[in-house]
Amino acid sequence: MSKKKNRKTGQPPGTLIYTGNVETENSDVTIMQFNESSISEKLLVGLNCLASVEKKVTWYDVRGLSNIKLIEEIGHTFHIHPLALEDVLNTQQRPKWEDYHNGIFMIVRALKFDDKALEITTEQIAFFLGTDFLLCFQEDPDENFHHIRERLHRGQGKIRQKGADFLIYTLMDGVVDDYFLVLDRTEEVIENLEEEILNNTSGTSRNKIYQLKRQLSEIRRVVLPMRDVVGRFVREESVFVEKETNIFIRDLYDHVVQVIELLESQRDMLVSLHELYNSELANRASHVMKVLTIVSAIFIPLTFIVGVYGTNFDNLPELHYKNSYHVMWFIMGVIAVGQLIYFKQKKWL
Amino acid sequence: MSKKKNRKTGQPPGTLIYTGNVETENSDVTIMQFNESSISEKLLVGLNCLASVEKKVTWYDVRGLSNIKLIEEIGHTFHIHPLALEDVLNTQQRPKWEDYHNGIFMIVRALKFDDKALEITTEQIAFFLGTDFLLCFQEDPDENFHHIRERLHRGQGKIRQKGADFLIYTLMDGVVDDYFLVLDRTEEVIENLEEEILNNTSGTSRNKIYQLKRQLSEIRRVVLPMRDVVGRFVREESVFVEKETNIFIRDLYDHVVQVIELLESQRDMLVSLHELYNSELANRASHVMKVLTIVSAIFIPLTFIVGVYGTNFDNLPELHYKNSYHVMWFIMGVIAVGQLIYFKQKKWL
Amino acid sequence: MSKKKNRKTGQPPGTLIYTGNVETENSDVTIMQFNESSISEKLLVGLNCLASVEKKVTWYDVRGLSNIKLIEEIGHTFHIHPLALEDVLNTQQRPKWEDYHNGIFMIVRALKFDDKALEITTEQIAFFLGTDFLLCFQEDPDENFHHIRERLHRGQGKIRQKGADFLIYTLMDGVVDDYFLVLDRTEEVIENLEEEILNNTSGTSRNKIYQLKRQLSEIRRVVLPMRDVVGRFVREESVFVEKETNIFIRDLYDHVVQVIELLESQRDMLVSLHELYNSELANRASHVMKVLTIVSAIFIPLTFIVGVYGTNFDNLPELHYKNSYHVMWFIMGVIAVGQLIYFKQKKWL
Amino acid sequence: MSKKKNRKTGQPPGTLIYTGNVETENSDVTIMQFNESSISEKLLVGLNCLASVEKKVTWYDVRGLSNIKLIEEIGHTFHIHPLALEDVLNTQQRPKWEDYHNGIFMIVRALKFDDKALEITTEQIAFFLGTDFLLCFQEDPDENFHHIRERLHRGQGKIRQKGADFLIYTLMDGVVDDYFLVLDRTEEVIENLEEEILNNTSGTSRNKIYQLKRQLSEIRRVVLPMRDVVGRFVREESVFVEKETNIFIRDLYDHVVQVIELLESQRDMLVSLHELYNSELANRASHVMKVLTIVSAIFIPLTFIVGVYGTNFDNLPELHYKNSYHVMWFIMGVIAVGQLIYFKQKKWL
Amino acid sequence: MSKKKNRKTGQPPGTLIYTGNVETENSDVTIMQFNESSISEKLLVGLNCLASVEKKVTWYDVRGLSNIKLIEEIGHTFHIHPLALEDVLNTQQRPKWEDYHNGIFMIVRALKFDDKALEITTEQIAFFLGTDFLLCFQEDPDENFHHIRERLHRGQGKIRQKGADFLIYTLMDGVVDDYFLVLDRTEEVIENLEEEILNNTSGTSRNKIYQLKRQLSEIRRVVLPMRDVVGRFVREESVFVEKETNIFIRDLYDHVVQVIELLESQRDMLVSLHELYNSELANRASHVMKVLTIVSAIFIPLTFIVGVYGTNFDNLPELHYKNSYHVMWFIMGVIAVGQLIYFKQKKWL
Repeated sequence: MSKKKNRKTGQPPGTLIYTGNVETENSDVTIMQFNESSISEKLLVGLNCLASVEKKVTWYDVRGLSNIKLIEEIGHTFHIHPLALEDVLNTQQRPKWEDYHNGIFMIVRALKFDDKALEITTEQIAFFLGTDFLLCFQEDPDENFHHIRERLHRGQGKIRQKGADFLIYTLMDGVVDDYFLVLDRTEEVIENLEEEILNNTSGTSRNKIYQLKRQLSEIRRVVLPMRDVVGRFVREESVFVEKETNIFIRDLYDHVVQVIELLESQRDMLVSLHELYNSELANRASHVMKVLTIVSAIFIPLTFIVGVYGTNFDNLPELHYKNSYHVMWFIMGVIAVGQLIYFKQKKWL
Repeated sequence: MSKKKNRKTGQPPGTLIYTGNVETENSDVTIMQFNESSISEKLLVGLNCLASVEKKVTWYDVRGLSNIKLIEEIGHTFHIHPLALEDVLNTQQRPKWEDYHNGIFMIVRALKFDDKALEITTEQIAFFLGTDFLLCFQEDPDENFHHIRERLHRGQGKIRQKGADFLIYTLMDGVVDDYFLVLDRTEEVIENLEEEILNNTSGTSRNKIYQLKRQLSEIRRVVLPMRDVVGRFVREESVFVEKETNIFIRDLYDHVVQVIELLESQRDMLVSLHELYNSELANRASHVMKVLTIVSAIFIPLTFIVGVYGTNFDNLPELHYKNSYHVMWFIMGVIAVGQLIYFKQKKWL
Repeated sequence: MSKKKNRKTGQPPGTLIYTGNVETENSDVTIMQFNESSISEKLLVGLNCLASVEKKVTWYDVRGLSNIKLIEEIGHTFHIHPLALEDVLNTQQRPKWEDYHNGIFMIVRALKFDDKALEITTEQIAFFLGTDFLLCFQEDPDENFHHIRERLHRGQGKIRQKGADFLIYTLMDGVVDDYFLVLDRTEEVIENLEEEILNNTSGTSRNKIYQLKRQLSEIRRVVLPMRDVVGRFVREESVFVEKETNIFIRDLYDHVVQVIELLESQRDMLVSLHELYNSELANRASHVMKVLTIVSAIFIPLTFIVGVYGTNFDNLPELHYKNSYHVMWFIMGVIAVGQLIYFKQKKWL
Repeated sequence: MSKKKNRKTGQPPGTLIYTGNVETENSDVTIMQFNESSISEKLLVGLNCLASVEKKVTWYDVRGLSNIKLIEEIGHTFHIHPLALEDVLNTQQRPKWEDYHNGIFMIVRALKFDDKALEITTEQIAFFLGTDFLLCFQEDPDENFHHIRERLHRGQGKIRQKGADFLIYTLMDGVVDDYFLVLDRTEEVIENLEEEILNNTSGTSRNKIYQLKRQLSEIRRVVLPMRDVVGRFVREESVFVEKETNIFIRDLYDHVVQVIELLESQRDMLVSLHELYNSELANRASHVMKVLTIVSAIFIPLTFIVGVYGTNFDNLPELHYKNSYHVMWFIMGVIAVGQLIYFKQKKWL
Repeated sequence: MSKKKNRKTGQPPGTLIYTGNVETENSDVTIMQFNESSISEKLLVGLNCLASVEKKVTWYDVRGLSNIKLIEEIGHTFHIHPLALEDVLNTQQRPKWEDYHNGIFMIVRALKFDDKALEITTEQIAFFLGTDFLLCFQEDPDENFHHIRERLHRGQGKIRQKGADFLIYTLMDGVVDDYFLVLDRTEEVIENLEEEILNNTSGTSRNKIYQLKRQLSEIRRVVLPMRDVVGRFVREESVFVEKETNIFIRDLYDHVVQVIELLESQRDMLVSLHELYNSELANRASHVMKVLTIVSAIFIPLTFIVGVYGTNFDNLPELHYKNSYHVMWFIMGVIAVGQLIYFKQKKWL
């Protein structure tokens, strides 16, 4: 996330450079215009398409950010502030909310989780909400919102009856729903790890815990600012958002809070898991040492005893008694059994 | 809690799907209507029953959420906002408080604790409070409030003399009382664990600590938002809540705060307990090592000595003296006793 | 603290049940009436005694809470809210402050510390402050305030010249003074523990640390809410408190803050002490291991050498040289001294 | 700090008892009166000296608090509130700020650090600021402010041109400057400790870390409330403080914040240092164990082999071959070298 | 950072002493005057150059602070408050923001990171912003802003069209951009450390972790106050800052917040890394112990057995059977294999 930031460093503010690493040939712009009764979808061919139609909501969906010139022209057409346009292209932004006089500018981040590699990927999505239109900038040409596009076509739900503010709410709701999916997967991974540790401690589980910790703190860096963003969306009474939509955004806010709580509880679980791993490690080490101690404590004295009778002294009376060999075995047996009883009492066996 | 969330993901907001896992054949709706002088209780048979009676408080108690159509109709009858109705059915919600123009919508969670399996189960309960009626949605047909139902019938306490706002207070008080019961049990478990650890360290106590930690953080996720919910109930001056009832809700708020403090102090105790366990483990390991060291330090040198006189050198004068065997024993005795004194001084014995 | 709570669970709010465990035969009520010039003290015999005298401050001191009927009647006489009266008897309350229209209701907790058993005991004290009277409910018949009672009789300080608000301040000041005494004792225990650990690590000190941690977190649960209680006493401008008294209450607030800081610093000390204990433990374990290693590293190779010459090979030339036995001793000496030098260099000796 | 507190416990509020432990024969009061053009300094002989001179700032500097009667009379003369006067003598107060109608009362604490014994000593200084005078109470007759006294005499800086509010600012600035000196010294100690640990782990460094931690938390208890005190000094617009002086006090506030940041970063450093110490300890223990393991793993099998050929079986063919002794040595050599290579690969050597 | 502070201690406030350690012969002052159409740059030769030109923005860039007299004269010319001037020279200040009536005074700190030595160096930069001029004081004659100077000359971006407020924003943006560069490098170091630890634990990585922790907490002490400084810059509506520029400063604020989040996540990573290191250490110790235990557990009993048959008893029947030597080998083989199977089952092999 930070490594690409330096591409921008040292440039005057407002310089338009795409800092992401999704290589696309061009930027596709899909234009959807709809109201309750009708809906149309077309690709942008010339800038003169960028006109709104009366009593219709228009959704300009820009996918792929490599065509800087096009984006600059779009920004010009909709009077987007240079800094906002810079943020659209600088795809390592943290989620933000900015109220310009002619619209609300918002940056959110979508999350994906690869549960094989235990790795999070994030994608920046920028919105610019005007009175009857919504601009949406996505880094990846494989868009995130095909479900919602379908829903629009089918006219399902209230989305066609409402304005651009409800559209942006629906899109953000989709983004936040994906957070839950990601956290479901991380929880699964944690639960598997838990079992792995309770059954057998291997170095791999320690590395997995470490890796997962890093990913969760990555998620946290995405989700925590989202709370501020949606929170401001709720509180600031913008002219671009109808009162009725506000109830829905409040619901979205509750979802974000729930995501954060889930996340924090998973972080807690990871910490406990690491402690469990460490205790387990110490426990096993202590078990290994017990085995060593028992074997040594039993056989070292016995070896000493037989050593005594291996000496070559001329005058070593015990060697010459008839039963001394068997007496020695008996004594050694007593010693060994005594020690076993002692260890049993100490619960080392 | 999170796993079922994904059933809802990708649906337009306001879609009614029951996401719980309590399988019920139908949804039972009990209707209680009462004032100070009289009380009646009946089962809902048709929707025309959903009419309030003048100067009476009506409590609609919906148990089991599988009959989505019925719930939709109830929502329609009482003009409940689609998002609220969605939350009723989506039973993985965190506790919330929402003030709609025609009533207060609230979600709380009841807690149960199975102290054999050390496992918490939670159940979502949704309330919708209007001027003279209270809707209550419970997931489990085995309801939580039979005590209060009995109290209503007996006319015990002030509950019959007051309005729907006092009824909801009483129900929430019952829910919070259960939190105390759960925490009493967890405290008992902790105290048993404490004794277990102080007497004997087994791997089981570590797993129990871990398990309990997870349960407490689950409880925390239920109880912490409850403080916000009841707190808003106290602060927001709603037309649906009488001033006099507010004193009672403030008392409830104090109870929730007390629950949270108890919970935090138990979490603290668990952390201390885990540290105690680790110290205990280290202590025992160190004890094992002392045994090993004492045995080795005494017998390894002695074995060396007898080894010396087990060599077959042609010219080994000591072997031929008359008393050398007994001298060797004496010397070895001195060495052993010297070491024992040394270990005694070091307090290893 | 929590175990007795369940006696109340499931009861309608306002039910009067004594949940403490101080068994008393009856409840004693002492009535003190005083102004600057005169003072009288008597025991309550009938409820008609509960009348205030003009231009005098009356202090009703109820000791022992087993006589529920009496307390109910007192509550009735002074128009105390049922919830307040319930709190008086439910002696597991956290400190609270409630402003009713006819008086201020306050709950504080007194602390005692048994430094033999390292155990805290707490006692609930409830106050109800009216215009010219103060009701005080103590659980234990051995009252906490005999110092102040004496001071009143002697007319020492300003207490006789001022109103009931100054009386309650004086009583609370006495309670907070006891907190300092308790913390003085815990600090002493901590300092003893410190010395104990620095000189010798025993399992007992670990248990003491654990025990003390629990007690301090118990104290914390008493003292933290006290800050809120006294803080509200300072801020809320009640008609029952004169402006001049407010300066004194602010001073009391400073004391409570100081108690909390002391407490937090003691908790810090305990954490450091536990770390110290663990380091000490690791240090000793490492010392034990060094002893084992030195003994083993010196004697195991030597034993090997003598073992070589204990073999019975027909053709083992060294056995037959005249000085080989002494050469062996010399070589073994060199090896042993070399190792000692090595260990010395490593500072293991 | 807390032990002397109990001397006061149980006394009525406002009782004047000196609770410090600086034994002085008497209390010296120096009176300095100055304006831009002239300055005079004299010792207090009678209470009639306590009169302010028009258009001059008077600084009453009370050093030594054993003469309670004198201090009571001073309090009486300047109408100081009994609680403030009590705080002057009760020298275990935390820093505080109180605005009385006739002046501002402030308590600060001076710090000194003995870097041999690693021990902090604190001294309480109380101020009472009126319109054109400043009372200053110091516990120790060796005053803290001789630099500033000299500066006053020399007329250096703005101090002579300004009022009593600037004088108190200058004195507090001197106190805060000393905090920096103390923290410079603790930082030096920490850096020495760091080197000590990185070069050699001794039990002493652990004790020093522990000792320093305690001292830093002592400093923290002094400095943290200072932020509140100076912060209130900045915010509260008192009639006793000119607007122009406020800029200076704001600067002082910044200094206090900087002290706290330094302190917190030092506390962090100590925590890291303790972790470093523990890692170092574990590292060394693991090194010791490696030595033990290498020696044992090489020689124990070899000793077994020679043991085999030390047996006295009648029929042990290898004993009678001509070269078996040398073959045994060769095999043992191969085993030993093989193990050394193995340990080398494992980087244990 | 703190060590030089004491050079100032004990001086009256407002004393001008340079406390940095950049030795420069003189202080260079570059004067740039520009508007949209023209730009000029000259070196200051006499104080009469310090005059602003109408409708032009003037940037006085003072590099090197050793010429105290010059700086005092500049301060005098621009009516800078003595405390501000003191702060300019006292180069161990924390970032601060002060609004004087005639301009805004600001201190920021530039960061550089030497990734060989893992060491942070910071440099203080002070700004004084007036209506149409900006004073900038840098400690190091090698200035930080040559990029921006070039940009000014080239007329790139909006900088020439805007006022002194935009200039200061641009300079601060440059400083904050450098923070990102520093954090990119520390992240790289952390990632290398991570690999180092996962592959091989050496004492060096532990020292590097420790060193990096200290550096990050140093960075934190620089960056955290920057948030307050830029935050106040955003909030306080100063006459010296145009409304339009405020949007840019808000963007800068977002950058600072992003820096802090990056920093915190890196600190988190270091903590996890240290835990990983410790687990790795424990893991290896446990591996070493397993090797010791396996070798000992196998060979110590075997050595005992051969010891038995090395005894010289007259009556030891087994010695005289024909196959007893081979039977002994067989038995010892069974014991060894049995143990290997046992260790295999325990996953120690």
